[in-house]
Amino acid sequence: MVMTMATINLNYDKLGSGYLFPQIAERTQIFLDKNQDAKIMKLGIGNTTEKLVPSIIEALHDSVDNLAHNETYTGYGDEQGNSILRNLIAEQYAARGIHIEPSEIFVSDGAKPDSANIQSIFGQGIVAVQCPSYPVYVDTNVIDGRTGEFDEETQQYEGIVYMPCTAENDFFPEVPTGKVDIIYLCSPNNPTGAVATKEQLQTFVDYAIDNKAVIIFDAAYAQYISDPNLPKSIYEVPGAKECAVEICSFSKSAGFTGVRLGHTVVPMDLVVEDTERKQLNTTWNQRQTRFFNGASNISQDGGLAALSEQGLKESQSVIDYYMENARIIKEGVESLGFTAYGGVNAPYVWMNTKGMKSWDFFDKLLEETHVVGTPGVGFGPNGEGFIRLSAFGHREDIEEAVDSMIQNLKM
Amino acid sequence: MVMTMATINLNYDKLGSGYLFPQIAERTQIFLDKNQDAKIMKLGIGNTTEKLVPSIIEALHDSVDNLAHNETYTGYGDEQGNSILRNLIAEQYAARGIHIEPSEIFVSDGAKPDSANIQSIFGQGIVAVQCPSYPVYVDTNVIDGRTGEFDEETQQYEGIVYMPCTAENDFFPEVPTGKVDIIYLCSPNNPTGAVATKEQLQTFVDYAIDNKAVIIFDAAYAQYISDPNLPKSIYEVPGAKECAVEICSFSKSAGFTGVRLGHTVVPMDLVVEDTERKQLNTTWNQRQTRFFNGASNISQDGGLAALSEQGLKESQSVIDYYMENARIIKEGVESLGFTAYGGVNAPYVWMNTKGMKSWDFFDKLLEETHVVGTPGVGFGPNGEGFIRLSAFGHREDIEEAVDSMIQNLKM
Repeated sequence: MVMTMATINLNYDKLGSGYLFPQIAERTQIFLDKNQDAKIMKLGIGNTTEKLVPSIIEALHDSVDNLAHNETYTGYGDEQGNSILRNLIAEQYAARGIHIEPSEIFVSDGAKPDSANIQSIFGQGIVAVQCPSYPVYVDTNVIDGRTGEFDEETQQYEGIVYMPCTAENDFFPEVPTGKVDIIYLCSPNNPTGAVATKEQLQTFVDYAIDNKAVIIFDAAYAQYISDPNLPKSIYEVPGAKECAVEICSFSKSAGFTGVRLGHTVVPMDLVVEDTERKQLNTTWNQRQTRFFNGASNISQDGGLAALSEQGLKESQSVIDYYMENARIIKEGVESLGFTAYGGVNAPYVWMNTKGMKSWDFFDKLLEETHVVGTPGVGFGPNGEGFIRLSAFGHREDIEEAVDSMIQNLKM
Repeated sequence: MVMTMATINLNYDKLGSGYLFPQIAERTQIFLDKNQDAKIMKLGIGNTTEKLVPSIIEALHDSVDNLAHNETYTGYGDEQGNSILRNLIAEQYAARGIHIEPSEIFVSDGAKPDSANIQSIFGQGIVAVQCPSYPVYVDTNVIDGRTGEFDEETQQYEGIVYMPCTAENDFFPEVPTGKVDIIYLCSPNNPTGAVATKEQLQTFVDYAIDNKAVIIFDAAYAQYISDPNLPKSIYEVPGAKECAVEICSFSKSAGFTGVRLGHTVVPMDLVVEDTERKQLNTTWNQRQTRFFNGASNISQDGGLAALSEQGLKESQSVIDYYMENARIIKEGVESLGFTAYGGVNAPYVWMNTKGMKSWDFFDKLLEETHVVGTPGVGFGPNGEGFIRLSAFGHREDIEEAVDSMIQNLKM
């Protein structure tokens, strides 16, 4: 008998050198090691910086107090989330004219895990992503075996349909010309800051229904939309409940990047037909009950406060603060003659690097101005020649970074 | 062109009717609907009931206060966990003479997600589980395609090696006679309450090294071991770092079932050889950075307090409390002439149902005494004829449940 060994999931071999943000941290550290006095100004990772608002803090304290008494202590909750929170999320949708049942809502520990795990409930199939896009969509499909090898030439994985998002199409793609099965859309978009119109989303909903595809709609930045004509949810588009899952987050709307909370909507009307007709909701429920044990009860209590009238009002002022940062960044780089997109209904400014490669411009920006951005190419080949600047930061740091770019960038 | 549809991962079709605990909840609800005045006494799901200890409560409040000020606010942390917490966990191992590097420790949102997700980093291979065992091990391997169909006759999935745990072998199995690749061991065991000796673990470590297999060691209940001669970690056994991953939890040791916190150790010495030599640590790190965004910062701050000298001392008193419950349950059912195992170094009493089928005894117990247990067969076919009674509960409720069994069970 030949002794075989426990093997690794070989799809991991296909992954590129590293997840984008650790790579940025590494390059920044190398620069810091050489320039120990440099003050680094981070406009890179989209990490919230402003304190939680008073109503959420109060709720978190109350939640901790509840854990301090046997009468109010809680252990395991439902894997799908606290029913009061699920009801409140459903009410939020209802207030915008969208009917979502609490049973269609799955509370989670954030949008990243949900957008990573959602692919695992599907069989094989062709995946389409916006290019550029959040790396998690592609990487998790690579790991689960829905792609071929990474092609160094094209900087793309074989088998994935990359839908170009460029200045020419306002950073929202045409529907695929061939048949695909799973489509990831993110609006407001990370990294481009573009927001899809209802008409644009309708083209994808129509495509998905006609082509029996499923849309994974990442709405993590929805609360940054101030234009009332732009959709905050894909369910504002007729037909979406038959073809789309929506992933939402408390990270950027309420500052929960560290606290961890999100939710995913899997409508009952979303039916997939393979060996039989199946509600995707049932499968996601099976997945969550096996692989997950519910979001932290403290985080969920914080989420309840975040969705209260007072919490929403207070959190809006933090969103407004970050969006003022975005305006400062955008005007700053425009004053330097760069073309910049996004930053109006999204906390990211997507800046054209005037023909330089993304990583080259990353290095130039770091060395000359001590500002850290995120190389656009890290989000896919169509991101080449762009850099993402994040509006998350203290005002004085944002202003200092923009000033440094204006003063020190050698043009 | 035939229009294919996005398909569901067909392995979901293989899953049995439902996850065990929702099934129990459903049967209990049906009973309650018919008997609206009945007071249900739950010795079923292993859910903590006692308030968090003062030092943890204080740390949780401090953590929330930190989020209320820009100077101390934190957003995203490392996916692998707060480095201070990883260091402290390493120190806990060191205090028991086990050298584990912080880089070998991955903080998570709990032992259930980790024991569910760990299989995803492996390729195909033969899985061995103790029988009975925690259903998550089998279900997640079914979903990831490492099994065949469920055989209604044997109540087993094709392709899985079930290692019988019976009274005859003190509920710890012999090593497999053939070659397997991934072995799940849980000690103190859920559901049987049996604790493996060092000698018993050594047989599996030796087998794993000889057979190039990996052991997934679930130590979620380690803190319930009071006998100093029994190992709380598989790394107390020579060779284990070359073949074993260890999964730990704050749920049962510190009452974090709802707060959510755990950790998994993946030693650097654990190398798998397929297309090349690979450290499992690297792959798990890749997995965690793509699929996970770190445990809640509040939960992690609570974890720091739980591992402080004061936190450990206070938490020990809660463990002692639950173990006194276990003693009461065990003596109670023994006084009724039942044979009961476990309950000495583990918070579960594993009770022989005197020839009745597990679900039949579940119904009898519910109907006659209003006590909810967990049918042993829910943990696998070797659990048939047993029921698991959980020691997690308020003392008065445990006493009332035991009294009700003594008074009302028709023998």
